[in-house]
Amino acid sequence: MRIATLTSGGDCPGLNAVIRGIVRTASSDYGSTVVGYQDGWVGLMEDRRVQLYDDESIDRILLRGGTILGTGRLHPDRFKNGLDQIKANLADAGVDALIPIGGEGTLKGAKWLSDNGIPVVGVPKTIDNDVNGTDYTFGFDTAVSVATDAIDRLHTTAESHNRVMIVEVMGRHVGWIALHAGMAGGAHYIVIPEQPFDVAEICKAMERRFQMGEKYGIVVVAEGAMPKEGTMELKSGGVDQFGHEIFTGMGQQIADEIQARAGHDVRTTVLGHIQRGGTPTAYDRVLATRYGVHAARACHTGDFGKVVALKGEHINLIDLEEAVGTLKRVPEGRYRTAQALFG
Amino acid sequence: MRIATLTSGGDCPGLNAVIRGIVRTASSDYGSTVVGYQDGWVGLMEDRRVQLYDDESIDRILLRGGTILGTGRLHPDRFKNGLDQIKANLADAGVDALIPIGGEGTLKGAKWLSDNGIPVVGVPKTIDNDVNGTDYTFGFDTAVSVATDAIDRLHTTAESHNRVMIVEVMGRHVGWIALHAGMAGGAHYIVIPEQPFDVAEICKAMERRFQMGEKYGIVVVAEGAMPKEGTMELKSGGVDQFGHEIFTGMGQQIADEIQARAGHDVRTTVLGHIQRGGTPTAYDRVLATRYGVHAARACHTGDFGKVVALKGEHINLIDLEEAVGTLKRVPEGRYRTAQALFG
Amino acid sequence: MRIATLTSGGDCPGLNAVIRGIVRTASSDYGSTVVGYQDGWVGLMEDRRVQLYDDESIDRILLRGGTILGTGRLHPDRFKNGLDQIKANLADAGVDALIPIGGEGTLKGAKWLSDNGIPVVGVPKTIDNDVNGTDYTFGFDTAVSVATDAIDRLHTTAESHNRVMIVEVMGRHVGWIALHAGMAGGAHYIVIPEQPFDVAEICKAMERRFQMGEKYGIVVVAEGAMPKEGTMELKSGGVDQFGHEIFTGMGQQIADEIQARAGHDVRTTVLGHIQRGGTPTAYDRVLATRYGVHAARACHTGDFGKVVALKGEHINLIDLEEAVGTLKRVPEGRYRTAQALFG
Amino acid sequence: MRIATLTSGGDCPGLNAVIRGIVRTASSDYGSTVVGYQDGWVGLMEDRRVQLYDDESIDRILLRGGTILGTGRLHPDRFKNGLDQIKANLADAGVDALIPIGGEGTLKGAKWLSDNGIPVVGVPKTIDNDVNGTDYTFGFDTAVSVATDAIDRLHTTAESHNRVMIVEVMGRHVGWIALHAGMAGGAHYIVIPEQPFDVAEICKAMERRFQMGEKYGIVVVAEGAMPKEGTMELKSGGVDQFGHEIFTGMGQQIADEIQARAGHDVRTTVLGHIQRGGTPTAYDRVLATRYGVHAARACHTGDFGKVVALKGEHINLIDLEEAVGTLKRVPEGRYRTAQALFG
Repeated sequence: MRIATLTSGGDCPGLNAVIRGIVRTASSDYGSTVVGYQDGWVGLMEDRRVQLYDDESIDRILLRGGTILGTGRLHPDRFKNGLDQIKANLADAGVDALIPIGGEGTLKGAKWLSDNGIPVVGVPKTIDNDVNGTDYTFGFDTAVSVATDAIDRLHTTAESHNRVMIVEVMGRHVGWIALHAGMAGGAHYIVIPEQPFDVAEICKAMERRFQMGEKYGIVVVAEGAMPKEGTMELKSGGVDQFGHEIFTGMGQQIADEIQARAGHDVRTTVLGHIQRGGTPTAYDRVLATRYGVHAARACHTGDFGKVVALKGEHINLIDLEEAVGTLKRVPEGRYRTAQALFG
Repeated sequence: MRIATLTSGGDCPGLNAVIRGIVRTASSDYGSTVVGYQDGWVGLMEDRRVQLYDDESIDRILLRGGTILGTGRLHPDRFKNGLDQIKANLADAGVDALIPIGGEGTLKGAKWLSDNGIPVVGVPKTIDNDVNGTDYTFGFDTAVSVATDAIDRLHTTAESHNRVMIVEVMGRHVGWIALHAGMAGGAHYIVIPEQPFDVAEICKAMERRFQMGEKYGIVVVAEGAMPKEGTMELKSGGVDQFGHEIFTGMGQQIADEIQARAGHDVRTTVLGHIQRGGTPTAYDRVLATRYGVHAARACHTGDFGKVVALKGEHINLIDLEEAVGTLKRVPEGRYRTAQALFG
Repeated sequence: MRIATLTSGGDCPGLNAVIRGIVRTASSDYGSTVVGYQDGWVGLMEDRRVQLYDDESIDRILLRGGTILGTGRLHPDRFKNGLDQIKANLADAGVDALIPIGGEGTLKGAKWLSDNGIPVVGVPKTIDNDVNGTDYTFGFDTAVSVATDAIDRLHTTAESHNRVMIVEVMGRHVGWIALHAGMAGGAHYIVIPEQPFDVAEICKAMERRFQMGEKYGIVVVAEGAMPKEGTMELKSGGVDQFGHEIFTGMGQQIADEIQARAGHDVRTTVLGHIQRGGTPTAYDRVLATRYGVHAARACHTGDFGKVVALKGEHINLIDLEEAVGTLKRVPEGRYRTAQALFG
Repeated sequence: MRIATLTSGGDCPGLNAVIRGIVRTASSDYGSTVVGYQDGWVGLMEDRRVQLYDDESIDRILLRGGTILGTGRLHPDRFKNGLDQIKANLADAGVDALIPIGGEGTLKGAKWLSDNGIPVVGVPKTIDNDVNGTDYTFGFDTAVSVATDAIDRLHTTAESHNRVMIVEVMGRHVGWIALHAGMAGGAHYIVIPEQPFDVAEICKAMERRFQMGEKYGIVVVAEGAMPKEGTMELKSGGVDQFGHEIFTGMGQQIADEIQARAGHDVRTTVLGHIQRGGTPTAYDRVLATRYGVHAARACHTGDFGKVVALKGEHINLIDLEEAVGTLKRVPEGRYRTAQALFG
């Protein structure tokens, strides 16, 4: 059998561990071969592929962040004649099954291909942990660990200078990284997109701390956080391609507002890209490896149109449809649990 | 309400995060108070307790390994008049609910108390991840991370010197740490108690590597690993208190055997206590905190005779009986997945 | 003997290790006592002091970032009657010697006090490594380590997305952090205040990489970097208290310029406060501890008007004057060595 | 010009950074080429060499532990006709200068070659930091960091269980790793080869702690530590090749003795090979890179018969003779400084 794989969307620690899992399983358990398309869907469209051999070089990638195949952000349905071209290229390369590794957008593309007769097994990838139908995605634990390390460091700086420190972490649509890093880092307030915030509440929480003799506070803010209607004026960051107004630098905007209202010395740290690069944590290496092994197996058992997914202790195969339906958001109960630790 | 807690058995990263979760939740959500008994069950028997205040000092413990309460290995049913003494001490301290945090032995003690009318909510604790009924226990992720870091370092040493390197990790009865650290660390063979090993198979795997041009191998061994009947002579380490022969230093014994049979330069590293100490990973801090919050809540909702347990994304309450019935061992399927990556 | 200490200026990993070194040495080797003034010079002016005991609590601070005494940015000569007040407060507390721990500004204050008859031993502190007369200052190694970790992570992200990544690190006046983190992190270009840059040169270096088949580049920029006269238009960030124009966000300004000139996809990461907080590296703990021990000894041997300083393998005492004369800048030779590795 | 390099002796984090520094400098600053001999001197004898190209692959090795050239423990003067063979092989390969990277034994070999007319520039390598004439050697900081991380973790385990914990670190002849890791890790006693120990003194230090209410102790032991004459009976580990009695497991021997004398619960952790493998610290990457750059430069300026060495902030060239004369031991003064922090 001949399997093809590609990585698409933002990079994510663990992508290479998935690729290694696919190659090693295909080779040692089934005697199959694997090719990789470069730079995401665009490499499949342009037939840029590399043979992936089951040798020492594939072992070395386990620890490497990023993706040895490169990635891209174009979706296959954006291409004119995309489907025909893809079918032709896969046939030309003698590919029997395709394993696209990517986030919600990528899995939508995978579903479109699957609906059109291409044998596909998807692997969910998002550091944001927002793919529906799976308990965790790889890369998330690494992102949370990096953010938690940063928060650990900021505690002592904030305390030494009697400051309120705002830490902006990734999470445009969901607050999983903010929630977990905030809980792990002992944040005194956490702001996530799922729960519109009121700066007055944050100020009140800081006030309580200062009144009890504490001299600093740590507030973790997901980049996509938004205020409750009418509670705070936002500086606009322009409009996006669809004409929607966008707001960036939410951490800094909240910092400015707290400083203006409460008079604290407030500083902002934006963690940025370091959350998505570098060596994956042990947790992410194990999860990503299992995804790769199970995706390769699904190709050989003919379980197409599926996505590998973690459910409790098991890797299951769920329908592509389930994975792309909706984003997995932070449920209110989880936010309530975090709130018990605020202040 | 007045809650008491204690930590029993081997120490484990995240114990303090549980304690913090209990204290913060009890105080801020319910206005309840918490006392801690020192050094495990023995502190409860001897009525050595400390008040745990909901202040900055409780926040600082989130990152600290070990347990601020100390721990001990005695079980309550080993004490003559143990039950009466415990009941008297709890009544004397005005305690309405008890949260013992510990492994299988501790939870058995908790069940014995619960069966005898004491309101108990257990929190499972084991770096070995072998408590039944919960997907993960805190401390396990930290132990796997420490072991994985060590394996990462040993790769380059082994390769530079053309050696087979044996890494002995914790796991007397189950192989979870070996399995996960071995997978995360890219081990070329993993030996766990659940799957009796044959040194001939390990030698064969190493041989394959050397024939393919590789010059080294990493073998991860759980301390409780045992050979298949008749495949290898073990050096006895004496007999235990029950008269059973014990075998220690399994890593070194396997190393000696490989060296004797295959002539490789083989070295052993025993990771030991560093796997169970120190700052918990972000994953363990979140899990331990959630356990603490939910245990405190269960006390207030009157859900006694239960244990908090992770099931997928949720913290559930399961019966104490379910948690202490059997050890959770590595299922054959999980070992097969790891095997796909060997060699 | 009675020693007083205080920490002044920006916080820095290792401050607590110095304090511990002073307290332990004073107590165990000389039977002396130590008091700490809070929040820098202002605490000395306002006589806010705490007794520092030689017990387990002082041991625990070895690993903690920040400073248990708090810090401040006011200088003693800014206070009207500052000298009289300080003399009165020290006399009132029975203090025989003062150990101020701080950067160039703090040591200038120390010199002023010393010139006015107060027995002072200074401890140099700067994560920027720019104090004259000492090979290294504590905190610098931690800052470089944090920045290097971040650069390690950004390599894989940049490579996966074919990007030029700008990493802005601390260093308003000197480029030591940029130089060392850039060398350790394998940066492809390093920009420091001591060597005015020309964006055309950076673009050329990136071009060379892309022509050789590489698909990404990492550029490390010290925050105080400045372009060669006439090579680039800067966006002003307003004027400072002295009426000098200030330029912030140099990383982003360089990124914009490269993107405009060369058309690469360029992203910026500003590391910010995480470089100065958190647990010190082993190197910094040893250096800071030695500084503390030697400062306490100097008080007892009557070597006042001095600063502890690392020279090769030894801790020396140098004159306060030597330490505050000029900033220690990156010599051209060191930058040439780094350049050999560019591209 | 054509430069050859080889790595000899035990592996050490930073070896690859030296190689990279040589290759990049030779190529970009001088247009020279570099070959590497494999597996130390033996590869030079057997003429096993690889061309080292100045491309992306050489950049990737900066972070890798071990040595891409492999290493060996044979010395060139052990070979019959060694000198003639080496001269012939170097001539055959058109090599103009040789850079051996290794410890005291390797540098002795380098001196022997240099004395016999081969143009040699040595690079000192030892995680033990015991090469004479240089302030620090690369690999040492990484070893100290790994050991310090381990000690940090053992504190909380020891404290939770009221134990004395013995940590055996590397250092057969000198105590630098034990001294620095012990100071950085806040050890309560440090035992080094330069200062024969008396177990009675260690017990006394632990006793003082327990009397002051502390419940645990950390003792760091260099593997080559030896007791004061007549203070303790050692278990023999046999005799070495020269007929000298050897003593191994010094950590465990001290542990047994403390347990026997003082009745504490004492445990031993032997850190072993993890101290010498894996990614180098930022400090070691910078130092090793500078060594490589300066060694390549010395070849081009004709400064042969020399060794690169760190003196304060500078890389100097010292005579090979100075480097191999004696081991650099921990001076008594440095041990006294550490003692101020004991207990």
